[in-house]
Amino acid sequence: MIHQEIKRKFISIVSPENFQDSPVERLSYSFDSSPDMPAMPDAVISPRNTKEVSEIVKICNEHRIPIVPRGSGTNLCGGTCPVEGGIVMLFKHMNKILELDEENLTITVQPGVLTLDIITAVEDKGLFYPPDPGSMKISTIGGNINENSGGLRGLKYGVTRDYVIGLEVVMPNGDIVRTGGKLAKDVAGYDLTSLMVGSEGTLGIITEATLKLVPKPESKKTMLALYHDLEAAARSVSKIIANKIIPATLEFLDQPTLQVVEDYVKIGLPVDAKAILLIEQDGPPAVAQRDIEKITAICREEGAFSVEVAKTEEEATALTTARRWALSALARLKPTTILEDATVPRSEVANMVRAIGEIAEKYNLLICTFGHAGDGNLHPTCPTDARNREEMERVHKAFAEIFEKAVELGGTITGEHGVGIAKAPYLELKLGKAGLAVMKAIKQALDPNNIMNPGKIFAKDDKTKLVIHK
Amino acid sequence: MIHQEIKRKFISIVSPENFQDSPVERLSYSFDSSPDMPAMPDAVISPRNTKEVSEIVKICNEHRIPIVPRGSGTNLCGGTCPVEGGIVMLFKHMNKILELDEENLTITVQPGVLTLDIITAVEDKGLFYPPDPGSMKISTIGGNINENSGGLRGLKYGVTRDYVIGLEVVMPNGDIVRTGGKLAKDVAGYDLTSLMVGSEGTLGIITEATLKLVPKPESKKTMLALYHDLEAAARSVSKIIANKIIPATLEFLDQPTLQVVEDYVKIGLPVDAKAILLIEQDGPPAVAQRDIEKITAICREEGAFSVEVAKTEEEATALTTARRWALSALARLKPTTILEDATVPRSEVANMVRAIGEIAEKYNLLICTFGHAGDGNLHPTCPTDARNREEMERVHKAFAEIFEKAVELGGTITGEHGVGIAKAPYLELKLGKAGLAVMKAIKQALDPNNIMNPGKIFAKDDKTKLVIHK
Repeated sequence: MIHQEIKRKFISIVSPENFQDSPVERLSYSFDSSPDMPAMPDAVISPRNTKEVSEIVKICNEHRIPIVPRGSGTNLCGGTCPVEGGIVMLFKHMNKILELDEENLTITVQPGVLTLDIITAVEDKGLFYPPDPGSMKISTIGGNINENSGGLRGLKYGVTRDYVIGLEVVMPNGDIVRTGGKLAKDVAGYDLTSLMVGSEGTLGIITEATLKLVPKPESKKTMLALYHDLEAAARSVSKIIANKIIPATLEFLDQPTLQVVEDYVKIGLPVDAKAILLIEQDGPPAVAQRDIEKITAICREEGAFSVEVAKTEEEATALTTARRWALSALARLKPTTILEDATVPRSEVANMVRAIGEIAEKYNLLICTFGHAGDGNLHPTCPTDARNREEMERVHKAFAEIFEKAVELGGTITGEHGVGIAKAPYLELKLGKAGLAVMKAIKQALDPNNIMNPGKIFAKDDKTKLVIHK
Repeated sequence: MIHQEIKRKFISIVSPENFQDSPVERLSYSFDSSPDMPAMPDAVISPRNTKEVSEIVKICNEHRIPIVPRGSGTNLCGGTCPVEGGIVMLFKHMNKILELDEENLTITVQPGVLTLDIITAVEDKGLFYPPDPGSMKISTIGGNINENSGGLRGLKYGVTRDYVIGLEVVMPNGDIVRTGGKLAKDVAGYDLTSLMVGSEGTLGIITEATLKLVPKPESKKTMLALYHDLEAAARSVSKIIANKIIPATLEFLDQPTLQVVEDYVKIGLPVDAKAILLIEQDGPPAVAQRDIEKITAICREEGAFSVEVAKTEEEATALTTARRWALSALARLKPTTILEDATVPRSEVANMVRAIGEIAEKYNLLICTFGHAGDGNLHPTCPTDARNREEMERVHKAFAEIFEKAVELGGTITGEHGVGIAKAPYLELKLGKAGLAVMKAIKQALDPNNIMNPGKIFAKDDKTKLVIHK
C-alpha cells in the first residue's frame, strides 16, 4: 500500500487522472504475457514527460517503492509483473515520434511509441528499422529496448541493441542522463547505451531513444525448402552461411509444429516434411535474385525434396503464414503453452533440435520446435496443462535440461525473450558465479535501494519457473 | 617500487624472463603514442595465459598495485601511460588466433594478436573483419577492444564494439568471467561485452575475444571529388546519405591538409581545391558500380569541379594516398602535433569544420582538418611546438573551444581515440555530472581498489591536457 501522503505527492505530479489505484486498474496490470505469475501493483501511474518521471522516481527512491516500467506487457519472461508491488509506470502519454532525421538516418522517439509505427514511419521515407519482434504490432519501443528484442531479421540485421545509439534515462536516484547521440562513433567513457538496452527496467527508466536507421532494402524474395530429415535442413543452414550468403530471414519449423499449424489454418502445408526452412533475402533485385538461386541450389544439394520460390507478394505471404501462425496454432492445443528461446551457435542447431527431441521423449512430452535457425535462436514449445501437476513437473525438468544442453553447446538460456522472473533461476548456468556477481555489483551500484523492477534478472532462490501462455 | 616479496611472487607466476624491472625496461614502457605524459612503471610483466593473469591481478588487488594492460601502445589518449606506477602488463605470449570458425563466422583470438593479422587471416577465407584503425598494422586486437577503435570503414560497417560478441575477462578481483559467445542473440542479463569494449582497461583485463565476421565484399570502387568550397563538399556528404547510399568510406581533407600532404609526398595533388572527398563503395560489382555512378552525379550536382573514379587498383591506391599520409605529413611540419577527434552528427560536419577554422583564426594557429566525414568523426590537427609555452596556451584554449562546439552541435569529445588522460578533463562536457556519476559508480563497483589502469577516463581535476605527437 502506498501511504496517503505519498499518494498525494504522486497525484500532484501527474494530476489525478494519471494516478490509479482502484482494484480494477491494479488487477489490469498485475500480469503480462506470462500469466502464471500475477502480482498486484499498489498503483498505476502515467507520467506525461521526463521531468514527471524523474520526480516520481525520486519519491520512490526515498520511500523504497518499487517501480515497474511497462510498455504493452508483451514480454515473455514475466518482466513486467510487479512481483514486489509498488507502482507500474505506463508511457501512454509519452508516445510521440519526436524527429525523423533523414540526413543523419536516425529517428528519435518516446518510449510509448508502438514498434510498428516506427517501422511504418521510416519505411514511408525509404528507410528501414530492422528489429521485428513477433509482438511488433502491439509492443512499444520502450519495451523492446528494455528487453533488447530480436525478431526474424536478426541474422542479417542484428537486434534492438544494434539500433539504439542514444538514450535519455532517468536513473534510480532521479538523475536524468543522456547517453550517446546521433553519432556513429563515440568513445566518451563506458557504453551506457548498450548497458541500458536489455537491462529489463532494472537500472533506470528510458524516457527517450534515438535509433539508427538504414536504407530500406530495394526488394525481397521469399522461398520455402522441405526436407525429409532434420540434419539435411540444418546442413543447408550451415552451408548457406559458409557460402558467404547472409539471408534476411532463415526460419525453421519441425514436423510437429508443421502438423499443428496445418491442423489449425488448413493451408495445405506439407505435413509429411520432417523439417522446413523459410528463407528470405533482400537487397538490390539482382543480388537478392542471385542469392536465392544459390540458396535454392544448396538446399537441393543437401536433400530438400521441394524448393519453392514465391513468384508474387501474395505467394510470399502465403509461404510465411506457417511461421507466423506457429505460436497461435500451438497455443490452442492445450490450456497451457510453454514457449522458450534457448539459443545456440548456428553450427549446433541440428544437435540442439535433436537433443530437444530426446529430452521430450525422455519426459514423454510433446515439444514442437521452430525458430530462427540462421541465428541459432530456437523456440522449443510445449503445449501442456498447468493444472496437471505431475506433467508440469516433467515439463520443468525437461526445460531445465534443454537450458543446460544449450549452454553446454556454447549457447545461452535466452536469445531474445529476456531473463525476467522466468529465466532468473538459470542465469548462473550461463554466466557462472563470477559473471553473475559482476552484474549484481552493477545493479547494486546504480540502484542501491533496489527500486527498479525488483525481483527480475536475479533469482532469490533457484526455484524453477517457466513462462506459461494461457 | 614493488616490494621484494611481491616481486618474488610475480616471478614465481610468470617465470623470471617474463618479469622485468630494470630501468631500461621500465623506461621503454613509460610512454605510448601520446608522449607528453611519460610515467615510469615499477615493472613490466608478460603473463603466458589467463590463469597467470588472474593470479597477478589477485596479488595486485591485495596490495593495491596499479595494472596497465598494454598492446602496442598506439593509442592517442595516453591510455597506456602508467601514470600511477605499478605494472605494465604485456600480451606478447598471448598472441594466438585460437579458432577461425567458418560455420559461425567468428574468429576467437588472444589479446596480443595484431589487428592486421586478423584481417589477413579472415580475408584468406573470403571473410571480412571491418574495423581498420589507422594503426592496424601494428596495433593489437586487445588494444583495439579496450579503446573501441574505429577506422575508415566505420560509416558502413561500424566500429570494434560492433564486432565483439564474446569475451574472457579477468576482473579486478581476479575472477575469470566469460561474456557472450558465438551467438547472434543473447539476452542473459546485462551486456557486459559492450561494457568492457572501450573501457580502456579500467574494468578488467581482456584475455580472449570472439569476433563476428561478415562475408568479404566482392568488389570495391574508389573515387575522389574536388571542391572549391567546403560547404559543397559537406552538402555532397549529406546528399549521398540522404539518397540511401552508405559508402564504405567517405573521407574528407581540407585545403591546409592537402597542401601539407602535397608538400610532403609530391604526387600532384590539386592544392587549389578547398576540400576533397575520398569515397569508396564496396559490394557486388554491379551495386558498387551503380552507387559510384550515383555518387559521381551527386558530387557534380553539388559543385565538385573534378570527380575521378579509379580505373585500376593502382589508381585507387594513388587516390587514397593523400588521406593515408595526412598525419605523417602534418607531423613533420613542427616538433609537436596535436591530433584530435571531435565528432559531430553527420549533418553538422560543415558547421564543425567552419567553427574549427574560426577558432584557429581566433587563436592564430594552423589547424588542418581531415577525417571521416561520413560518420562526422573529424581530426582537427595542429602542428605546434610544446616548448613554446605561449603558443601551447593558445592551442589548449582552441581545442577546449573545439570540444565545446562539438558537444554543442550534438557531438562528442572523442569519436575513436578514447578518453585516457587526454580527454578526461572534458568528459563532463559530454556526459554531464549525472552521466559521469553513473560511470564512476560502475568503476567503483567493479574495481573498488582502483587498481585497473587508474588515472584514466576520470579526471582528478579539470586541468587541460592534450595529446602531443612528437
